Amino acid sequence: MNFDKASLKDMANAIRALSMDAVEKAASGHVGMPLGMADVATTLFTSHLKYDPQKPDWKDRDRFVLSAGHGSMLIYSLLHLTGYESVSLSDIENFRQLGAQTPGHPENFITQGVETTTGPLGQGIATAVGMALAERHLNARFGNDLVDHYTYVLAGDGCLMEGVSQEAITLAGHLNLNRMIVLWDDNSVTIDGGTNMSDSTDQIKRFEAAGWMTAAIDGHDPEAIDQALTWAKSCDKPVMIACKTRIGYGAPNIEGTGKAHGGPYGAEEIAGIRKYIGWDHEPFVLPEDVVANWRAAGARGAEARETWEKRLAGAQERDAFEEAFNTELPPAFADAMAAHKQSVSDGQDKKATRQWSGAALEVATKILPTMIGGSADLTGSNNTKTSSTGPLTATDYSGRYVYYGIREHGMAACMNGMALHGGIIPYSGTFFVFGDYSRPAIRLGALMGTPVIHVMTHDSIGLGEDGPTHQPVEHLASFRAMPNIHVFRPADGVETAECWELALARTTGPSIMALTRQGVAPARSGKITENLSAKGGYVLKEAEGDPQVVLLATGSEVELALAAQESLKSDGIAARVVSLPCWELFTEQDEAYIEDVLGGDLPKVAVEAGVRLGWDQWIGRKGKFVGMSSFGASAPYKDLFTHFGITAENVASTAKSLV
Amino acid sequence: MNFDKASLKDMANAIRALSMDAVEKAASGHVGMPLGMADVATTLFTSHLKYDPQKPDWKDRDRFVLSAGHGSMLIYSLLHLTGYESVSLSDIENFRQLGAQTPGHPENFITQGVETTTGPLGQGIATAVGMALAERHLNARFGNDLVDHYTYVLAGDGCLMEGVSQEAITLAGHLNLNRMIVLWDDNSVTIDGGTNMSDSTDQIKRFEAAGWMTAAIDGHDPEAIDQALTWAKSCDKPVMIACKTRIGYGAPNIEGTGKAHGGPYGAEEIAGIRKYIGWDHEPFVLPEDVVANWRAAGARGAEARETWEKRLAGAQERDAFEEAFNTELPPAFADAMAAHKQSVSDGQDKKATRQWSGAALEVATKILPTMIGGSADLTGSNNTKTSSTGPLTATDYSGRYVYYGIREHGMAACMNGMALHGGIIPYSGTFFVFGDYSRPAIRLGALMGTPVIHVMTHDSIGLGEDGPTHQPVEHLASFRAMPNIHVFRPADGVETAECWELALARTTGPSIMALTRQGVAPARSGKITENLSAKGGYVLKEAEGDPQVVLLATGSEVELALAAQESLKSDGIAARVVSLPCWELFTEQDEAYIEDVLGGDLPKVAVEAGVRLGWDQWIGRKGKFVGMSSFGASAPYKDLFTHFGITAENVASTAKSLV
Repeated sequence: MNFDKASLKDMANAIRALSMDAVEKAASGHVGMPLGMADVATTLFTSHLKYDPQKPDWKDRDRFVLSAGHGSMLIYSLLHLTGYESVSLSDIENFRQLGAQTPGHPENFITQGVETTTGPLGQGIATAVGMALAERHLNARFGNDLVDHYTYVLAGDGCLMEGVSQEAITLAGHLNLNRMIVLWDDNSVTIDGGTNMSDSTDQIKRFEAAGWMTAAIDGHDPEAIDQALTWAKSCDKPVMIACKTRIGYGAPNIEGTGKAHGGPYGAEEIAGIRKYIGWDHEPFVLPEDVVANWRAAGARGAEARETWEKRLAGAQERDAFEEAFNTELPPAFADAMAAHKQSVSDGQDKKATRQWSGAALEVATKILPTMIGGSADLTGSNNTKTSSTGPLTATDYSGRYVYYGIREHGMAACMNGMALHGGIIPYSGTFFVFGDYSRPAIRLGALMGTPVIHVMTHDSIGLGEDGPTHQPVEHLASFRAMPNIHVFRPADGVETAECWELALARTTGPSIMALTRQGVAPARSGKITENLSAKGGYVLKEAEGDPQVVLLATGSEVELALAAQESLKSDGIAARVVSLPCWELFTEQDEAYIEDVLGGDLPKVAVEAGVRLGWDQWIGRKGKFVGMSSFGASAPYKDLFTHFGITAENVASTAKSLV
Repeated sequence: MNFDKASLKDMANAIRALSMDAVEKAASGHVGMPLGMADVATTLFTSHLKYDPQKPDWKDRDRFVLSAGHGSMLIYSLLHLTGYESVSLSDIENFRQLGAQTPGHPENFITQGVETTTGPLGQGIATAVGMALAERHLNARFGNDLVDHYTYVLAGDGCLMEGVSQEAITLAGHLNLNRMIVLWDDNSVTIDGGTNMSDSTDQIKRFEAAGWMTAAIDGHDPEAIDQALTWAKSCDKPVMIACKTRIGYGAPNIEGTGKAHGGPYGAEEIAGIRKYIGWDHEPFVLPEDVVANWRAAGARGAEARETWEKRLAGAQERDAFEEAFNTELPPAFADAMAAHKQSVSDGQDKKATRQWSGAALEVATKILPTMIGGSADLTGSNNTKTSSTGPLTATDYSGRYVYYGIREHGMAACMNGMALHGGIIPYSGTFFVFGDYSRPAIRLGALMGTPVIHVMTHDSIGLGEDGPTHQPVEHLASFRAMPNIHVFRPADGVETAECWELALARTTGPSIMALTRQGVAPARSGKITENLSAKGGYVLKEAEGDPQVVLLATGSEVELALAAQESLKSDGIAARVVSLPCWELFTEQDEAYIEDVLGGDLPKVAVEAGVRLGWDQWIGRKGKFVGMSSFGASAPYKDLFTHFGITAENVASTAKSLV
């Protein structure tokens, strides 16, 4: 779209004005970046970005990710000015207030037009890799007519200092995601002061080392910005454009300093900016011509969107395309899983739950073409690769398996991005202990409610010789503490299949599958009908006669509880065994069911090869716990279970002491 | 030391033989790297590394960090061959068995000569930055005569793919840590297969972009290795040497493939290697001449160590130097803190605990010259900078404050490295929510027992407008789940000072100081004598008359409990208020004290602006909890406390419902 230079300046200044007025009124927020990046954003949103404010969910829109999420007023200004219904002027006046569509950091689940929640630095750029990857994959699957868009990222110095950015840019470079364009706000300032206080990195060289194309421009020159964006779209590699900007643009005393980063600037600075940019309107007042220009810019995508809709309507792949974006699973899936579960039950093998997970995945990935798997360099250990998922590479984006490399954090963020893009159910694998590496991205997924599945094998001291650095002991507790995440720890092949059914059906947040390295005995057998894991916890094996004690367990320790039950029986003690594969689902049941399963005031013993924290909610302060209270050790796993006293004998004798 | 080429080969082959024999016998472990890096390690340990196996704790020794920790047999072989007592041949034969000095991954707390625990990739290189930084700082403080050594790192492809490596190398480059030398095992292989499956990074260019010098050599050519190390030691920047090696060196069928990474190779491959390297000795048998050469290499550092000891004995700075490495705090510290606590108590201000923390730090850093602070770009928010801690920069290493940049993970690992080096008590700051970023390094610190202090401000929804991405709700629980870490959450200025006393006195592991952004009312007043926080929990304000209910709280919510107590009193209900600033210390008290504080079977209400997980251990299943059960929101903090129902009114009415 062609606006003259003066109009573009006015339009950029409208962003500046809204941003500073909102931050001043809230007396909180970060205006330095919107002031600095207003020109870049204006050129992007008027002449390059493909979007339609009337259809924020147009599937082939370009994605714009504000990785420097603290500058949220930039995106709120843009959404309001281009005509998104989601952000009214009143929302902007209520910036950072309860209930407004304008929270402190952009939240995709609050504000339509925001593609992803950002704020924790580096997450945006890493999430965008997943969006760009989803685009290339779906393009390979459905063709240019249906999927053909760019993913733009606005990243700050903080995003690029965070380690996750390295995982992101090297993955994007390796996969040659040439529809990804990063606009680096090169303003030489962080909160503590000049970037030269903490960094000396040559970012251009660094991105080139990762296989990117680069350019460096004056971020206040609309022509240079326009040319760079035109060039970037034509590149056959991912592109990073260093935009030299002045943070706090126009602030008479603090422009270009650490003080310009955030916080209200105060009346004097604001007056100075108004004067400098020639903006003599009252706070939150926008001149009609500027608004009209912005609305025209916002309206320019409607035609392309309508054309795309027509193409979709006539496309051969239409059904498959819509099915890909349908979050409901097809009936064929339930049928195939039912058959699988029965065959597992009939098979009665002793296998690791990671192997059972691989078997379930083999079935699921065959039925669900939207599943894209991967592993952070532990493919053989995580059992995440199936015969349906060929490698997704820079030369074949149609593949369905990503070799993520040793990049747990980038992998988890990438999965969030794929899920947010839509058309894909991402899952990936690593060791459970390395969930700590990916935790910030897992948390963001939980906050946003992205349906992604983290396969986490080697879930306890049961991994044996690799020792305490590799043995999760606190990880079940630490993830159970996180809101909106389902932590599954199945006990055998049947429960593993059930948990996969539940994880794949979940549309409102991430799931973790905590799986054993070592073999486990079957816990369930016979005819498999109801998905018992769906209640999160259930009586796996009732006592013969009135129960005197309840034994609770998850995962590999269910086997120990069952053995203890037998041993107690021979001592004339009736024990109930409860399996708790998913605490979050169990908590959702009604109180009567929960009390019924837990057996009211009956004495309780829990066994789990992790720490006790959290278990008291089920067993009470007086319940006994058989598990870990320290880090693990390096030895064959059977020696470790004995060493740490996590044995059927110990469960039985503990139960006896309570009866 | 001059060994001829043939001798060096034999010596390297001794490493190869021990490594493969140990892994075969354990039927577990990773021999590919030791086979590949044996030549590099041999040249380093025979001709460059400064160490004395008779005095593994010689303070001016070079540090050697095996960042690729899975190749642990490399370091065990080296320690055994050079004559460290810590690793006997029997330990090597018992590789990865319970009780041996040779766990699966190197553990500094098990095996003398191992400088740091490694295994989680990238941690070693990031920890080494802290060692190299400690060296430069102590060199600036005590001079070349006492501190003048190198820090070597052996890093693999995995280490360099992990994001934390980027934080580490850019920090090292920025601070120009020219005594740090990274040997990259450039073997082109990861577990999943060729590195070309997952990475295309030009590592040489990447390190140069971070301000490093680089070289690329044949990792099997002793002369090239020797020359490169000699050159590296002369450089005035940190150095990365890319060592092209053959993983699984000599294995006839799997050398250079993903299969060579780990696991026992099997008899055929082992026989092939033996043949290829000309090693016809039985497993675990070493020829005398090779052992003699290795012992001679190991003995070569004794003279330098003795000379250094003499220099120390005669040095003017001797006392200060020894005091720096003394983990006991001087009596002046207790006196100064006592005065500080009393002045806080007398002052009775309403301030944020992060401000009280800053005040305590002002006192502590003045007395303790070993304290080195810093922040991940939140200096003003974390209140971590004091008048005694000037900036530590590339041109002035004598400073005591590190501007870590937006590198929480690298910062935490760097602190581990400084603590392991000795002579420094590191502390640093970030927002509590970003403890997720640094969690893998915090965990390693907890495992190793490094005395480091993580200042974590903005510890709840009390931070207000920044919203849920910045509001920890699960972090108290997730860190309380981690073994060997003390999570302090003080309620006011007095408790904050007490907790700082406890954190600084702790020598066996890390501490977290969870601190408010918002102001809190004083909880303690009058004469301050005993450190009440030392018991982890205590009756802060007893009920008037026999207590009918117990209110438990931490941090900013103690104020709410106290207000609820007042309100209940006016309703004729006697409530006790218990403050629990450190659960870990409370757990260590005897059962009688704990029961006494908790008031036995009295009904209980806990209030904490975090999730309930873990609280049941104090309040039981039937206790009530006032806190969070979801992520937070963006709004002024007072609105949020009301919105989420975390108020004195709610605590009081909940208590009433139980009485």
